[in-house]
Amino acid sequence: MSLWFCESQTPAVRLCTRVKETLHSDKTGPQELAVLSTYQFGPALIVDGAMQTTSRDEFIYHEMLTHVPLYTHSHPEDILLIGGGDGGSLREILKHPQVKSIRLVEADRRVVELSKKHLPQLSACLEDPRVEILYAHGCQYLRETKDRYDVILVDTPVPVGRVAEHLTKEFYQDIYTALREDGIFAIQSASPFFQEDVMLKIHRNIQAIFPITRMYLAFIPTQPGGIWSFTLGSKDYDPLSTLAQKTPIPTRYYTCRLHRSAFVLPRFLEEMLDQEGPTGKS
Amino acid sequence: MSLWFCESQTPAVRLCTRVKETLHSDKTGPQELAVLSTYQFGPALIVDGAMQTTSRDEFIYHEMLTHVPLYTHSHPEDILLIGGGDGGSLREILKHPQVKSIRLVEADRRVVELSKKHLPQLSACLEDPRVEILYAHGCQYLRETKDRYDVILVDTPVPVGRVAEHLTKEFYQDIYTALREDGIFAIQSASPFFQEDVMLKIHRNIQAIFPITRMYLAFIPTQPGGIWSFTLGSKDYDPLSTLAQKTPIPTRYYTCRLHRSAFVLPRFLEEMLDQEGPTGKS
Repeated sequence: MSLWFCESQTPAVRLCTRVKETLHSDKTGPQELAVLSTYQFGPALIVDGAMQTTSRDEFIYHEMLTHVPLYTHSHPEDILLIGGGDGGSLREILKHPQVKSIRLVEADRRVVELSKKHLPQLSACLEDPRVEILYAHGCQYLRETKDRYDVILVDTPVPVGRVAEHLTKEFYQDIYTALREDGIFAIQSASPFFQEDVMLKIHRNIQAIFPITRMYLAFIPTQPGGIWSFTLGSKDYDPLSTLAQKTPIPTRYYTCRLHRSAFVLPRFLEEMLDQEGPTGKS
Repeated sequence: MSLWFCESQTPAVRLCTRVKETLHSDKTGPQELAVLSTYQFGPALIVDGAMQTTSRDEFIYHEMLTHVPLYTHSHPEDILLIGGGDGGSLREILKHPQVKSIRLVEADRRVVELSKKHLPQLSACLEDPRVEILYAHGCQYLRETKDRYDVILVDTPVPVGRVAEHLTKEFYQDIYTALREDGIFAIQSASPFFQEDVMLKIHRNIQAIFPITRMYLAFIPTQPGGIWSFTLGSKDYDPLSTLAQKTPIPTRYYTCRLHRSAFVLPRFLEEMLDQEGPTGKS
């Protein structure tokens, strides 16, 4: 039998991956979850029919979501992770020796359980003593939190459909309020090639609240179009001009040189953002 | 009817694109050619079952293949283009006011004809007076050419299968010989994620002949894995240290800042190349 998982990246583009077996499939919760063992990408977590993370290329997403803001902040001690129950971002955050505490706020307990069972490469750090897991909705938790975190990372599924509804201006305002006075936050902001509207909306909302807003890119083979954007909002540190001198950490994608180059955007994307107004202080 | 074109990027990964109609399909020549009108990417040229170029994302490939070497060379006057009968690279080369002549050596006359008929965005420059088209095999032409070109660009299909057979050390040696004493050449060198062996072989062969060998990357949504590599071989100019001051040209992807950042590789790729030996002088 030749079994394929096909993800509709747009109504007219599908990425199909050959599957060895379905390790898990669960439609009981608020989101449909599955773990597939794939030939090309190893075990893969599928959320609502979309590739959320795969063992083969997850390092790119998790390293770029975490190390860019954590290397920009001079003393990232208290970290809030919204979503990210698979543990991949956690593994990367814990590589920074300055980090004292991480609160992981995950809405879906099953993500943590599935990752522990099927994605050990991601979930190994979930038991670290610096980590506290809270099963709650990130939006709600943020509304009740003030001046508490150095870095906030939003590690939820691609912000389209139901997820996008939560990403209102109020959500970013609540993040701003939950951050200390020199705090930084980062979020994935979709495909500049296939999801321009979503990407620009995220950028616009962050820019309306944070004094410094910067977009950066990474190559992620299993994400739509391969080119994937992240947006960083910062109260004080500029990721382009400050790059704190810190102990090098073991990575497979991120380097300090790549940190800088990831912010250099192709012209069509520079122009798209320019039309939205100036970004950041410089 | 829902018609889809599916390309097997690897035995376990397929990229599928919804098709409006088949504009052309031709199995009579040495390579199978088709032009499909796609919903996502507009008209697309398919060579031997693989997406060769699409109207929506061709600018990325063509700009990055041409402008990186042309901005590195201080006086790119005489250019040789091996393949590239669709005209996309030609259009970009002709943006450089220093260019005096371009010889386009295309093995398959049908590519030029198809492009003129179905891909006007690519083929508009094929009639430029600075361009001379020679219908011949690039390998053979190179064998008879010495000390004649400032820049040579190899714009043939993805170097796998039959195409890869031609890309021997002798091929690169012939390119070296056909270049003037400060000449530069560039070629696409496949996906670092899905085609490591092909990529490393190209890099190794170029490195064995040219004093400076540099790999650079671009995001190309329709190429396997989205991350796409190019390799540049240079006799004198280093694309990292020299970036000739020239008139800015209109582009959609390339910028001078992006020129530099495209050479900053993710760590896994740096390490892959390091294992192959030092690259370039610096």
